[in-house]
Order: sequence, then structure tokens, then C-alpha cells
Amino acid sequence: MHDYQFYVSRENFQKKFVYLKDNEFRHCCRVLRKNEGDIINVFDGTGNVYQVKIIELNKDSAKCEIEKQIEYDISENPEIILGVGLVKTKALDILITQAVSLGIREFYPIQSEHSIKQNFNKERYLKKSLESVKQSGGIIIPEIHDPVNFETWIEKTNDIEMKIIALQEDSKAISQVISFNEKIKKTAVVIGPEGGFSNNEINSAKQSGFIPINIFEYRLRTELAVTSVIASIYALQRR
Amino acid sequence: MHDYQFYVSRENFQKKFVYLKDNEFRHCCRVLRKNEGDIINVFDGTGNVYQVKIIELNKDSAKCEIEKQIEYDISENPEIILGVGLVKTKALDILITQAVSLGIREFYPIQSEHSIKQNFNKERYLKKSLESVKQSGGIIIPEIHDPVNFETWIEKTNDIEMKIIALQEDSKAISQVISFNEKIKKTAVVIGPEGGFSNNEINSAKQSGFIPINIFEYRLRTELAVTSVIASIYALQRR
Repeated sequence: MHDYQFYVSRENFQKKFVYLKDNEFRHCCRVLRKNEGDIINVFDGTGNVYQVKIIELNKDSAKCEIEKQIEYDISENPEIILGVGLVKTKALDILITQAVSLGIREFYPIQSEHSIKQNFNKERYLKKSLESVKQSGGIIIPEIHDPVNFETWIEKTNDIEMKIIALQEDSKAISQVISFNEKIKKTAVVIGPEGGFSNNEINSAKQSGFIPINIFEYRLRTELAVTSVIASIYALQRR
Repeated sequence: MHDYQFYVSRENFQKKFVYLKDNEFRHCCRVLRKNEGDIINVFDGTGNVYQVKIIELNKDSAKCEIEKQIEYDISENPEIILGVGLVKTKALDILITQAVSLGIREFYPIQSEHSIKQNFNKERYLKKSLESVKQSGGIIIPEIHDPVNFETWIEKTNDIEMKIIALQEDSKAISQVISFNEKIKKTAVVIGPEGGFSNNEINSAKQSGFIPINIFEYRLRTELAVTSVIASIYALQRR
């Protein structure tokens, strides 16, 4: 478990100094009343965490000096690139929040054949993602992409070594595909919208190397399928 | 994936006849307009599913004749007895719905030291559970218990062969405890409320054989911890 840490984007790093701004500044220096001389942890969202000292408290920012980098070994964690057929906002909210809490690295909303027509408010999900990362104590802010169609998803994941598609029929238990014996660096996971994938999409995925896996013998709602498959990958890779 | 099936409680089975009533009757015969002579599937919530023919449509019930029992092999599934420290209704709604969709067998709300004071509307969750089972295509309706304190939970799970407690510190990866090599019949899982377990509770659980496991290196909200640990158990037991 990591201690509470504040987010500072890379552009607010200047040599040995970092600048807390906006929400992070308000939360740290107004809500939590941190002051000059106090030590806090900041993270840059790309995997780096630093112990810093607040050396100058201004009206709307705090200048901090880096004391040391805090080492986290995150090399054990499989990097998950998640693609999900667009579902309703309520389900999308739950699934993105939860998937980010579970540490995914990239998220692609997919405008697949059976998914509902849906606007994707990327800004909103960027904000939610930052909150989820902070809440869970993660150190990497995932990339949230604009919606893509299924073919673009296939292209984007072309070079990834392990690719799985969640399907009820004609599929394997996930343990037959992912195991301890083989450490996987990156895994692309694609999960359908409520209506499932079209046959065209399934064929296209299979042809480009996606392995069909089933998570349960039960029908799961998209958001539950998402968390279940991510948790399963971790369970099968972490010792 | 199972076909849509209607729930008939055991008391509405009479020899080779079953009686659809109430919501199930309305859904089947009013909404879906099934009629005399139509074949449907019914389940009794304890693992039995039957193919039946509607032979008599009445004003508020339908008499059906059992044609045959449909065999499902559910012996492969680990039976999960879940205990969770009471959390707010919104989180409780999500976690019970999702845990039931994932096929747990029993649920104990636990009034643990750090859990919030909370009424537990058992009737409401019985209803939600039936909906979740039908939605996911499961065939067993889990037992929903009244709230218990931590000591009662410990007593209730005393004879269960595998018992795990989700803890961040001083714990093992779940894969070190549950593996393919050993098929586990029943697993008791206990997950803390937002404030976590008290030291007393942790010690008491350890003394009675609960093994501490961590699900992730991240802090997870109670409802996400619940689905993650259930999905992990399935992933590690299903081949």
C-alpha cells in the first residue's frame, strides 16, 4: 500500500523542483493544510514517485524541492491494454473507474457493431482516471484514447504478444491461455458491449491472433466482465 | 450460456407438475406471451433445471408439466461463502449484485468494528439476488444471511476447508494459496469494510485458520475487492 501522493504533471517539474498546482495544490495546502517545511510524496503519472519538501507556499501553487526518488518495483505487473465496446454512461463510469483502479495502462472505447451510439467525454474520463489512480494508490495514469472502430483497435494492438477476446462460446478457460510459467509483458483484452461482438468482429479478432477466452459459464454484464478478466490476469501472473 | 429460465420455488413443485406464479408468471405469460403448449425452462434455485410444457394457463398462474431434467455439471465450481464488513447501501447494492452474478453460494453481512452502522434490508437483497441469478443465467440462488458480528462469522465458517481474509499487509498473493493442483470444494472469503478490519478481528481470523491474501498492491474499494477476489478464485481453479 502506498502513502497518499499528489499528482504533478511532467511539465511542472523543473530540475530539482516541482510545482503543485490547481486541485492538487488546493487539496494539499488548503484542505490538508500542508505548509512550508512539510514533506509530501508526489508522482508524475508515468511511474515515478518522489519525496519532496514544500519550500515556498504561494497563493495558488507550492514550490517543492525533490529530496529523493522513491523506488517502486512495478515490473511484476502485467501491462493491460483494454478495449471495450461502448456501453451506457453509467456502466462506462463504473468500468473505467474500476479498470483504472486495477492498474490498466491504456483504455480504448470501441464503437463496435452492436454497441450503442454514445458520446465519449474523454476529458471527463481523464479526470475520473486521475481520481481512481490516487484513490487506489497507483502510480501510473493510464492513457485514455478517443473512440475507435473495431478495425482500428485490431491495428493498434497488432504488435502485442498476448491478445485475448472475451467470448462465451468456442472459447477456453483463461488459465489455459495465461499462466505463471510464462511471464507476459503486455496483454490486450477486448470485451464486447451488451449485445456482444458481431461475427465479423469475432473473425477479424481471431485472424489477427486474439484468443477467445471465457471468464465464467455465466453471462456477465460488460462492467463485471471487465473487472473479472483483469483480476483473473493478475491472479494468474502474480506469485 | 444457459437459456432464459424461470424461477419456481420448491413448494410450487408437485410431483410432475410445477406452478409458475407472481412475477415469474407475469413475465413468462404476460410479457413474453408464452401460452399453453409452449416449452420453457424452469429452475428451483438449488441447482435443478427442468424443461416443462405449459399445460394450463390461469388468471394468475400457469400449470406446467415436467418433460425432463436438464443436466448441468456444476461440480467444477468452487463454492464461495462470502462475508463482507457492512458498507454504505450503494456499495452494498453493487457488491451483492455482482457477487451473486459471479455465483457465490452464501452471503454474510458482517457488523465488524470499523464498519458503519447500517440497516441490512434482507428482503431487498433476496429480491436483488434472484434478479442477478436470472440475469447471469446461474441456477443456484445464494443464501443471504442476517448481519452477524465477526465472532459469529468465524464460528459459522469453522468447518470450511479453505478460508481466506483479504489484507494488504503481511499477506500472500492469492496464487500461493489457491491453485489448480488442489481442487477446493468450499472457500470462505472475508473482506473488510472501508476502514479495514481491527487488529482483534485479524488475529481472531488468523487463529481460526484464515489465510491472509492480498489481491493487488493497490488499495481497492470494498466492492471492487469482492469481485476481484471471487474472479481470482475462479481463475485459479477453472481449467
